[in-house]
Amino acid sequence: MTQPSKSEITIDKIVSLAKRRGFVFQSSEIYGGLNGCWDYGPLGVELLRNVKDEWWKAMTLREDIEGIDASILMHPRVWEASGHVENFTDPMIDCRQCKARYRLDTLSDEISLKKIWESAEKIQNGNGTVVPDEWKKIFPVLSSLDKKQPEEVVRSEFAGTLEKFPFVILPELSCPNCGNRGTFTEARKFNLMFKTFVGPVEDSSAAVYLRPETAQGIYVNYQNVLASSRQKLPFGIAQIGKAFRNEINTKNWLFRTREFEQMEMQFFVKPGTDDDWFERWRHERIEWFTNLGIRNDKLHFHRHEKDKLAHYAKDAYDIEYLFPFGWGEIEGIHNRTNYDLTRHQEYSGKSMEYFDDTSKEKYIPYIIETSAGASRSFMAFLVDAYVEEQADKEIRSVLKFHPRLAPIKVAVLPLVNRENMPDIARNIFEDLRKRFRAFYDDAGSIGRRYRRQDEVGTPVCVTVDSQTLQDQTVTVRDRDSMQQERVASSRIAEYLDNKLKR
Amino acid sequence: MTQPSKSEITIDKIVSLAKRRGFVFQSSEIYGGLNGCWDYGPLGVELLRNVKDEWWKAMTLREDIEGIDASILMHPRVWEASGHVENFTDPMIDCRQCKARYRLDTLSDEISLKKIWESAEKIQNGNGTVVPDEWKKIFPVLSSLDKKQPEEVVRSEFAGTLEKFPFVILPELSCPNCGNRGTFTEARKFNLMFKTFVGPVEDSSAAVYLRPETAQGIYVNYQNVLASSRQKLPFGIAQIGKAFRNEINTKNWLFRTREFEQMEMQFFVKPGTDDDWFERWRHERIEWFTNLGIRNDKLHFHRHEKDKLAHYAKDAYDIEYLFPFGWGEIEGIHNRTNYDLTRHQEYSGKSMEYFDDTSKEKYIPYIIETSAGASRSFMAFLVDAYVEEQADKEIRSVLKFHPRLAPIKVAVLPLVNRENMPDIARNIFEDLRKRFRAFYDDAGSIGRRYRRQDEVGTPVCVTVDSQTLQDQTVTVRDRDSMQQERVASSRIAEYLDNKLKR
Repeated sequence: MTQPSKSEITIDKIVSLAKRRGFVFQSSEIYGGLNGCWDYGPLGVELLRNVKDEWWKAMTLREDIEGIDASILMHPRVWEASGHVENFTDPMIDCRQCKARYRLDTLSDEISLKKIWESAEKIQNGNGTVVPDEWKKIFPVLSSLDKKQPEEVVRSEFAGTLEKFPFVILPELSCPNCGNRGTFTEARKFNLMFKTFVGPVEDSSAAVYLRPETAQGIYVNYQNVLASSRQKLPFGIAQIGKAFRNEINTKNWLFRTREFEQMEMQFFVKPGTDDDWFERWRHERIEWFTNLGIRNDKLHFHRHEKDKLAHYAKDAYDIEYLFPFGWGEIEGIHNRTNYDLTRHQEYSGKSMEYFDDTSKEKYIPYIIETSAGASRSFMAFLVDAYVEEQADKEIRSVLKFHPRLAPIKVAVLPLVNRENMPDIARNIFEDLRKRFRAFYDDAGSIGRRYRRQDEVGTPVCVTVDSQTLQDQTVTVRDRDSMQQERVASSRIAEYLDNKLKR
Repeated sequence: MTQPSKSEITIDKIVSLAKRRGFVFQSSEIYGGLNGCWDYGPLGVELLRNVKDEWWKAMTLREDIEGIDASILMHPRVWEASGHVENFTDPMIDCRQCKARYRLDTLSDEISLKKIWESAEKIQNGNGTVVPDEWKKIFPVLSSLDKKQPEEVVRSEFAGTLEKFPFVILPELSCPNCGNRGTFTEARKFNLMFKTFVGPVEDSSAAVYLRPETAQGIYVNYQNVLASSRQKLPFGIAQIGKAFRNEINTKNWLFRTREFEQMEMQFFVKPGTDDDWFERWRHERIEWFTNLGIRNDKLHFHRHEKDKLAHYAKDAYDIEYLFPFGWGEIEGIHNRTNYDLTRHQEYSGKSMEYFDDTSKEKYIPYIIETSAGASRSFMAFLVDAYVEEQADKEIRSVLKFHPRLAPIKVAVLPLVNRENMPDIARNIFEDLRKRFRAFYDDAGSIGRRYRRQDEVGTPVCVTVDSQTLQDQTVTVRDRDSMQQERVASSRIAEYLDNKLKR
């Protein structure tokens, strides 16, 4: 068995396997699909359920965490308090000529730096544009850069900066639709929340949003949970649920979608203890991924720089996974301070204070958020499990899932077609499937049947052969090592239990 | 122990318990709530998960059923094919005077039959209104009724009929808002699907709907599931997920809401075998509820009359539960024929035919649908479990959940505060909670602690007392019988396992 040839593993290969074997289908595929939405097939739904169940158990079997399940539609004031109505926006521009609409930062990526530089010089030389003071600090930096440096080096210096100065960019932009240059409107904010209307009248008083994150459902319920559960600080509230973002550009399969699922836990702590809890949760969360089999070298932390923190955050780390397209966030751990609860107190007029009966103090708790993507975790577990390796004379594709995540735990494969073989195999199968998700397969050569199970990540294959008829033993084959051993058929359940405890 | 005094059990009592003990909170309560949306609290989310898990296991551990999880946002053509764009509507009217908007059938319920009768007579005598032929058949029936019969008897004869003839009703309607009479517009159809827009442009080409049922997500994936799972007919596809309906009138707590969760299984069969499968699934589904503890006399079937069947249905039964407000549907079993797949074939241009390799025939399968409300089942299990009964000298409130549905399986209660008692109790608790959702409570008198657990339906309380220090036995108390027995602490897990198998 040789090392997997990693270079060949592309997202396209995984997407194709995922469709063929029933992990993930395109949403509404028969109608050409709906961009940014995906459906989980028979094996996908089991993998997703296993990921979510592991997370749920890791969270709520603790004494200091309670679960909830809040609705997707919430009162619109929630999103004013949270800052989403004001801040959850992308800059959009329209072509005056042909009315086509684009995201400014996507188009600006496509203009060469040289053009931006020329545009900047024109403005600097006084072409009439009124420039803000902030720009006056940027220009010298831009000028001092060696123009012969590679494009991407210079650009990375200004990542996320130039977009703040659309007056430099807009005059140089050509409309990708009609080809005209300088025809774009000023950039304006486009909110990424999906809006709909409750009741029959479609006016602003009836507008509600599909939640763009599950966190707010936790914050608005925090006093209700405290009162009904008799918890004391520090304690957490966990929730799994769908969220929606009207992304202009969806990309990378399940990575940036319009509909997705989150697994969020908000941990409420006494101010002053927040840094400690932040560190504890950061480490706890990355271990959750490695304990479930993700390779250490495929995971790292990315810390948000101070000047790029979200408006509510004191500190933030992303757990990133190395996907075939590069590093991508699968979970964020944020110190959200008392920002959200303070805002909800202000907007609702309801107290968000906690009475600490040890210290006899009243305060608004700080919140440490652990926010994982269920869909992104699913994708990381799937990509990470996928291996191609030499087996005998062929390449086998294997999904080396942690046994607890594997959609099917055991396959029962009757070997030769002797008289009462099928009965014995069926009995073993019927017995196992009361406790484990099991699959029965009697079609094709045994080698082909093994490959089919490898490809969907079934950790154990049980083969019933002529020896079974004599001594009630079966061959048990391990997915990863391909080692086979004979086990009494009465002891397979125990064998599987041990695998799942791993 | 006497019989529960059933007369006192109202929805209000359950709603209040549900809030106080953390089963269900109003959505966005701190902002005054969002009508038709509810949040599940710490105990509610566990009960809901248990209901859904039992259903999922009952469905997908069968060899002939596959699970999926489709997205909530789907291609808009799906809802044209399904008939929802055209038919999923309520009749709405606007007051010309004050612009207030109402649902016609709600207002018409409020006009006395006498007024409708007078209006009908005027029209019959020729006041210029052009009446459809259908009305000519109705009027004699209305005339022949004894006008002295009680209002509700006469009305029930015409339930759902008069609303088809708004010209009789509209002239008599007074606007509840401005008080003017006869100021209403003609009725027009209001679609109950929530609409939103994908991408930055809010025009009809970008409109998508929040799914009003999960079923269509199954139909559009049927060929993908067949191809990836190697199933053959008859087989089913199961799905649990949220659906949304822009109901004008929400009511009865979790019963009629705008956001709700469904558990749907669509079973694909050969035409001609559909009646048999319909009967099998009908009985299978009602047994699922009774096996999980719902009382037989609180459940019945309501068969849809032939002339009231939905446009796609050949036969339909509702499983209804007797809520405090009356009988209400918790699941529908429908023979949907080949309507949906035929429509999707027509609208998508993709074949929905199945090749039957036994009979060498090609056909579009018939579908038997079992469509349960997860939220409504939750409510039925909660209401049905709630009992008030005499215990000693007080009334105790108990939630007599089936042990598999109970949010907490076992509570550990240390009895007297002897030196190492807490340690022993904690050890027992720590051991149990690895496998069972367990709760530790050392606050208050033992009687109060029992009552607290009864009220949330914990099937077993384990009491650690001074005898435990001597012989390692504990007192195990059964929630329903309140019988206590001593069990070796090493055998509690086994005791609980047996309860859960019940």
